Amino acid sequence: MKHDKVMNIAKKRGFLWSSFEIYAGVAGFYDYGPLGALLKDLIIDKWKNYYIIREGFYEIESPTVMPEEVLKASGHVDNFTDPMTECKECLEVYRADHIIEEMINRDVEGLSNEELTQIISEEKVMCPRCGGHLTKVWNYNLMFQTLIGAKGKKTGYMRPETAQGIFIPFKRLLRFFRGKLPFGVVQVGKAYRNEISPRQGVIRLREFTQAEAEIFVNPEDKTHERFHEIKDTMLKLYSGEIQLAEGEPVEISAGDAHDKGIVSSQILIYQLYIAQKFLRELGIPDEVIRFRQHLPTEMAHYAIDCWDVEVYTEKYGWVEIIGIADRTDFDLKSHTEHSNEDLRVFIEHDVPKMVKKLTIKPNMSKFGPYFKEDAPKIIKALEDIDVEEVKKSIESDNAFNIQIEDKNFELLPEHLNFEEIEEIIRGEKIFPHVIEPSYGIDRIVYSVLLHTFTEDNEREYFKLPKEIAPVEVSVFPLLNKKELNQIALKIRGDLRDNGFIAQFDTSGTIGRRYARSDEIGVPFAITVDHESLDDKKVTIRNRDDLKQKRVLISDIPEILDDLMKSKIEFEDITQ
Amino acid sequence: MKHDKVMNIAKKRGFLWSSFEIYAGVAGFYDYGPLGALLKDLIIDKWKNYYIIREGFYEIESPTVMPEEVLKASGHVDNFTDPMTECKECLEVYRADHIIEEMINRDVEGLSNEELTQIISEEKVMCPRCGGHLTKVWNYNLMFQTLIGAKGKKTGYMRPETAQGIFIPFKRLLRFFRGKLPFGVVQVGKAYRNEISPRQGVIRLREFTQAEAEIFVNPEDKTHERFHEIKDTMLKLYSGEIQLAEGEPVEISAGDAHDKGIVSSQILIYQLYIAQKFLRELGIPDEVIRFRQHLPTEMAHYAIDCWDVEVYTEKYGWVEIIGIADRTDFDLKSHTEHSNEDLRVFIEHDVPKMVKKLTIKPNMSKFGPYFKEDAPKIIKALEDIDVEEVKKSIESDNAFNIQIEDKNFELLPEHLNFEEIEEIIRGEKIFPHVIEPSYGIDRIVYSVLLHTFTEDNEREYFKLPKEIAPVEVSVFPLLNKKELNQIALKIRGDLRDNGFIAQFDTSGTIGRRYARSDEIGVPFAITVDHESLDDKKVTIRNRDDLKQKRVLISDIPEILDDLMKSKIEFEDITQ
Repeated sequence: MKHDKVMNIAKKRGFLWSSFEIYAGVAGFYDYGPLGALLKDLIIDKWKNYYIIREGFYEIESPTVMPEEVLKASGHVDNFTDPMTECKECLEVYRADHIIEEMINRDVEGLSNEELTQIISEEKVMCPRCGGHLTKVWNYNLMFQTLIGAKGKKTGYMRPETAQGIFIPFKRLLRFFRGKLPFGVVQVGKAYRNEISPRQGVIRLREFTQAEAEIFVNPEDKTHERFHEIKDTMLKLYSGEIQLAEGEPVEISAGDAHDKGIVSSQILIYQLYIAQKFLRELGIPDEVIRFRQHLPTEMAHYAIDCWDVEVYTEKYGWVEIIGIADRTDFDLKSHTEHSNEDLRVFIEHDVPKMVKKLTIKPNMSKFGPYFKEDAPKIIKALEDIDVEEVKKSIESDNAFNIQIEDKNFELLPEHLNFEEIEEIIRGEKIFPHVIEPSYGIDRIVYSVLLHTFTEDNEREYFKLPKEIAPVEVSVFPLLNKKELNQIALKIRGDLRDNGFIAQFDTSGTIGRRYARSDEIGVPFAITVDHESLDDKKVTIRNRDDLKQKRVLISDIPEILDDLMKSKIEFEDITQ
Repeated sequence: MKHDKVMNIAKKRGFLWSSFEIYAGVAGFYDYGPLGALLKDLIIDKWKNYYIIREGFYEIESPTVMPEEVLKASGHVDNFTDPMTECKECLEVYRADHIIEEMINRDVEGLSNEELTQIISEEKVMCPRCGGHLTKVWNYNLMFQTLIGAKGKKTGYMRPETAQGIFIPFKRLLRFFRGKLPFGVVQVGKAYRNEISPRQGVIRLREFTQAEAEIFVNPEDKTHERFHEIKDTMLKLYSGEIQLAEGEPVEISAGDAHDKGIVSSQILIYQLYIAQKFLRELGIPDEVIRFRQHLPTEMAHYAIDCWDVEVYTEKYGWVEIIGIADRTDFDLKSHTEHSNEDLRVFIEHDVPKMVKKLTIKPNMSKFGPYFKEDAPKIIKALEDIDVEEVKKSIESDNAFNIQIEDKNFELLPEHLNFEEIEEIIRGEKIFPHVIEPSYGIDRIVYSVLLHTFTEDNEREYFKLPKEIAPVEVSVFPLLNKKELNQIALKIRGDLRDNGFIAQFDTSGTIGRRYARSDEIGVPFAITVDHESLDDKKVTIRNRDDLKQKRVLISDIPEILDDLMKSKIEFEDITQ
């Protein structure tokens, strides 16, 4: 299986391996090795380039440890759970839905704990380890819990998503954006899920990296200013409707997806477009990408429309690597209720609205002499009163009684004048809606390794796009000789000074060294030979087509810079 | 106080603020706002450029959640503690050493809990909040504890340092570097310290970002191949000796610091040099930087020489922002003992050593007939035996007794021949030593804000070096008019397409907008005016000297690229 080959090379060459191996390991944790960490960094850089530079969103960084109040408000304390069951014999624990799917191949998405318990009992689903009976199913909270402060005064959790860290300081963010919608804020960082029994390698981690954007928009306006630029882009959509009809995903243009109401808004479609472009540039081919809409049964409690970007994998089937959701005003509303801070935004009307409004004016010639020193406080009290009610009472009862500090005052028709005035309403306070693209960086790294892995010309290598290749250039002496090594090391030094990640390798034949360099996806290799001593030239070799050119040593940094930035193609190099 | 002004602007403009404000906050946690996150990213990028690209180290990323075994081996479960005391009346908790220092201004570094308890009692140190009595002092572990897996099967902790994540997969890393020392591995990420009672803002966080390098070296060779290049660099050293003599730090060259044995190795001094260069380039002036050696009483249990890079702050005094330590072989040795994996490195001798060695050969003509079927197992047993001892016994007692599986065999002189042979020893297995520069990124961000804050020309602004300025360029229309805004937005769009972080601002007078742009340290501002409509030129303004130049709109991306990369100075711009 390609998966096994890829993961073997990934482990052997230093991309990825299970954490804590010397202590027998802990499921659900992976280390990024020297090449993996670079690859991941480059993927994140690319993501930031999309969202921060091009879209003009801003990044924030909030803590990974969060106090309980926040996650109570967000719903995670109550709802971030998985259905769990335990073997009565060997005490092994399982995710109830997974074990049912695995053992009797039945889709139980969206079923209640009671229904799962019933299936386990009726279908005789037993412990796959010892064959024992399984307990009834209960909700297990997936957050890592901890205590903040000495003596454990405060319950805290490791955050289950980076998004909440953006909602909490919303007022400060709104001020940063000068009070105007729409605006976007992103966060890239760790999130945690204390999985019950993770057995899917890097696909199901207990600690993982998310890159999320929260785009705050006026609920009345989910258009996107650049939608016209992307409306002809084709997207492979697997809508809820098609899934229920057991159909196949369809290729449809962004514009049609909007006009036919398949995706709920322009801004959501625009995010699908960005995700597709991003994955293509990482080297993941279109054939293995699709957009799957959440069915009503699986949609999160806060969302009204949600699309998973899925990548096909031989081992795990279609895997969600990005989720794109319209979270509505759920979070801001909930934090407003729980914190008593008003997280609404003042929206100015395009044109101020004129509204007719009834007002009371005391008739001071009668009012003052009648109420004397009580007059001011009665006037004050009238400011907050429902004017229509006063008028109705005066008209029907010829009087209106008002209670102030345990004392009753009777207002008579002669004390008051009613006047209708026009008031200008400049705008209103509303809760913004939130559009959220959420990228699972670790799954993306896995997908990139899996789908760029190439076997051709008797080579096995990661055909990584050059802009995400961890090592940009290898420098070899043709033979391991002092005078060649010196030149090669000097070239590597110059390349480093110019900001390139460059490696030097002398061990084994030149063929072996090319193979090793190709294997980890290094796009270019430079070889110093005996002629280099005289002509000050070296050979530069292109990973993908194995072509070679001979260039001046002094030209290398510039040529490589042009190649990496795609200012020139390899065949354009002038020898 | 400058601190207050800086933190006010930092909060107001979106660099930094206390986390969870709407839920009344939790001490020891900060958010990086839109500008702070960019600033922090740029500082980390610069750090990576130093360590990964120029030094050729590789990065890894390991989990922040760690199982207990790892932290037991590292000593953190037992030793990562602070002395704690509690008020018997109001139950407030305090760090015992801090409360003593605060209340009676006495330095108690390195004292035992018993000594601290005695001082509290004798000096009548009371609760500063309510005046109540304090309890005796005990050790409080500073790690955030959690449980990994369903049903809490495994105790885990949030890592107290990124370093351990590098030691655990040492064997894989060694293989990546083809088994050869020295090599360096870095990690940048979150670390956690559940402080007892943090009251020093961003200086004492419960969750913070570390950038650490672990440089694995042969203990016999702590030289640095480029030491000759830096030996004349002056460093302000505050050695242990000077501190004990109550002297002042002295300026001394790197070479002298080595020759006089003030710093224990070239490689350690080289790290001091890098730290100084790095901080200078961040805009922190030399006057507020010093290198302070740890006194024997404060040195960590694993270190033999340790230097803090300290920065002076008005509010907190001298603050450690970087620690540079020789951790010796403590960690690798300890993990070897606890994990039973051999984390030693095979070091090949420059020249194989010839060693004389005494060997035993059975005299088979006598040996075989005498011991018969037992002969083979006796020969086997002799392979693992101390030959010298056998020889001594034979010489003194004329016999050597050997016990195999409860049976005794007596070897007589005629059974054995002794022979001295020469053996070639190609190398030996050793534990590498570890040199560790550990950067506290949050404290560095604070130091940068504090020390680049400038008041001149009636302006208040962060004079950030342009390469770490969060926003690179502001684009303004001179007046908020549609035709000017269009051009300004087009310019901002082009700049973004060219990878610049560019902001657009129309609100308030042009003077106010310049002031706002300066305040957050934007190095360049572009203004579109009415003439721009005709001559297709705009004004570009330099933050630091307020000079202005008029340039073609089409030239802007190239000019800005040259300015940002310091290929040209502002005055070199041709109009």
